[in-house]
Amino acid sequence: MNANKPRIVVLGAGYAGMMTTKRLTQKFGAEEAEIVLVNKHNYHYQTTWLHEVAAGTINPNQARVMIKDVINPNRVRLIYDSVVKVNKEEKQVVLENSELSYDYLVISLGFETNTFGIKGMEENAFFIQDIDSCRYIYEHIEYQFAKYNNDPEADEDSLNILVGGGGFTGVEFVGELAEKIPELCKKYDVERSKARIINVEAAPSIMPGFDKELVAYAKSSLQSRGVEFREGAAIKECTEDAFIVGDDNEEIKAGTIVWTGGVKGSPVLAESGFEITKGKVTVDGDLRAPGEEDIFIIGDCAWVMNEAEGRPFPPTAQAAIQHADTCANNLYALLNNQPLEKFVFDDKGTVASLGITDAMGTVFDRKLYGKTAAAMKKVVDNRYVFMLGGPKLFLKKGKIRPF
Amino acid sequence: MNANKPRIVVLGAGYAGMMTTKRLTQKFGAEEAEIVLVNKHNYHYQTTWLHEVAAGTINPNQARVMIKDVINPNRVRLIYDSVVKVNKEEKQVVLENSELSYDYLVISLGFETNTFGIKGMEENAFFIQDIDSCRYIYEHIEYQFAKYNNDPEADEDSLNILVGGGGFTGVEFVGELAEKIPELCKKYDVERSKARIINVEAAPSIMPGFDKELVAYAKSSLQSRGVEFREGAAIKECTEDAFIVGDDNEEIKAGTIVWTGGVKGSPVLAESGFEITKGKVTVDGDLRAPGEEDIFIIGDCAWVMNEAEGRPFPPTAQAAIQHADTCANNLYALLNNQPLEKFVFDDKGTVASLGITDAMGTVFDRKLYGKTAAAMKKVVDNRYVFMLGGPKLFLKKGKIRPF
Repeated sequence: MNANKPRIVVLGAGYAGMMTTKRLTQKFGAEEAEIVLVNKHNYHYQTTWLHEVAAGTINPNQARVMIKDVINPNRVRLIYDSVVKVNKEEKQVVLENSELSYDYLVISLGFETNTFGIKGMEENAFFIQDIDSCRYIYEHIEYQFAKYNNDPEADEDSLNILVGGGGFTGVEFVGELAEKIPELCKKYDVERSKARIINVEAAPSIMPGFDKELVAYAKSSLQSRGVEFREGAAIKECTEDAFIVGDDNEEIKAGTIVWTGGVKGSPVLAESGFEITKGKVTVDGDLRAPGEEDIFIIGDCAWVMNEAEGRPFPPTAQAAIQHADTCANNLYALLNNQPLEKFVFDDKGTVASLGITDAMGTVFDRKLYGKTAAAMKKVVDNRYVFMLGGPKLFLKKGKIRPF
Repeated sequence: MNANKPRIVVLGAGYAGMMTTKRLTQKFGAEEAEIVLVNKHNYHYQTTWLHEVAAGTINPNQARVMIKDVINPNRVRLIYDSVVKVNKEEKQVVLENSELSYDYLVISLGFETNTFGIKGMEENAFFIQDIDSCRYIYEHIEYQFAKYNNDPEADEDSLNILVGGGGFTGVEFVGELAEKIPELCKKYDVERSKARIINVEAAPSIMPGFDKELVAYAKSSLQSRGVEFREGAAIKECTEDAFIVGDDNEEIKAGTIVWTGGVKGSPVLAESGFEITKGKVTVDGDLRAPGEEDIFIIGDCAWVMNEAEGRPFPPTAQAAIQHADTCANNLYALLNNQPLEKFVFDDKGTVASLGITDAMGTVFDRKLYGKTAAAMKKVVDNRYVFMLGGPKLFLKKGKIRPF
């Protein structure tokens, strides 16, 4: 390490970490700062596309990018390893296979699934969490179909897919399943009616907090394509092949059970002694951890308060990418003794996909439905691919699938 | 039923049954004979392509054809049901859901896997038997890869594929696996060396009876692509996750076990009181069952003697298709009081595929290797597609994959 050159270490190459790293390489000359990016895998993936990988509607490789294809490894030191904890006092990160000191640290380690202690969920449900877990989900689903006509033990329940949680991910996931399951039925000579897609949500309605008109649209679109909703249905337990639901302990059986009902920030946060609120760290307006001069926490590890409304900004990919801009700006300011800026979320709207040709959401305060919304969703997806890797990456990994 | 119009019933729509039915519609006018084709599924499949379905190198749908797309249902009565037995005395076929009388009968019910009583094989191994069983095999293989990085119980052995039997099917299957496994390793981030493909053959060499020079070529080609051969290795037992092999009871572990070591004719033959020799019925020279005036047995249900050599002709797809010609000719002769002809096998040669760009075999007594043989193999495959359904079917189901 060059004693005169400060070392900035970014932990995690999700939306927040990747874009921070990219912005840092644009802001700093090679002689001004050493940049290190630590990530578990040698690839970055599109978290907001994971439900498509899990439903088998896109190829897993389309949803990921080799880090070295978009970050110049001559400019940024890339370390592929898992983070164990941060020793703030020693300004050191403990990795599984080594240790690493830092001058400035960006923690962007993303989320883990939160089962809220529901009995059996951790053991028996699949999670939409990363590329590995999602292609495992898809293969598990297809395997149930392949088994059905061959294994005397396979019954119709084994074709059912139970999705716990009717939030954004749960609803987008059943939307993709509504596309894929008819295909699998055809491929494996199974009647469509034998494979049920069941979404279970504890709140009185799916997508709590979302515009009611849009939610009604989403529901009727998905129901018309064979998705069943069980709203106001709290899951009391997840067994090997069922949810136990509601006060009368109804058993809903399925061969594939996926939990999408909650997330929490990386466990490294608690391990490193940060104060945790609902699974994440509430950061200062400039995105630094409270009381820390040189540690930023961004993306799904952070709650960033919307002071006007007295509650956190929504933890979305859009927000994570905007965190990256502020974080890179503030690192530049810190190293140059300039004042730091405050994060302000620029809400461009939200579109939820409901399958290949349908979606719904709000963009610039306008409600969108159907094909228009689906087209807009693709624009949003592709915009990030462009930001990350330009037209070259767009041609390789963009969503160009036909309507 | 028109009392004056004889009813010809064909049981089974494999190579032999399909081509017999097709030839019958060409030979007989609609007023001359009623033709009935009975088959378990509403589709016909390419038995000689099943190893490719099992390895995932072709789409299962490419290997099958809807029967009504190649046989006119206004001309031939199509019954989709399983055959239970034939009552020769009553000239009646018992199906799972009905009964059916016949004047003339063609039994072309194909083969079943023969495990020769090897302990545990029936319960624990997959069989290359039909479309259902083969896509199940492929999904099982891919599922092991999807599991590997997710399930703490999955170890490297679970990625191994054990193939019992080094005959034609076993060797062609490992050839396809040698193409597919590297793809799966890449897709699921697994080192190629962790997934072994192991072929186990009891005889001193794989492909017993085949030209030694060609066998040596096949072995070295496959070994160079990572296939391991265990020759002279008798399988004593198949457990849930291993073969127990040889006198020292060596255990070879795998997550996927496929048995390709033998076939026998349909169990309907024995159920119906025909005399069985090594799993099949030895038919007369005109392809009729011994002592039966009106029952033909063809394809993999029959042994047809090569009287010049004093042993049966090899039971291949090529032979089954030729049986169909003789069988249709003889049915026409029978109904018109003409003399029946004797079956003579016209051996056009045999090519074994060793992957996508490699094969070996003899064609018109010339030995072929490599790309030339692979091209010839495709010609053979496509020739049948043409015979069955003309250029229209070729465009839909022909093998047009690029080299």
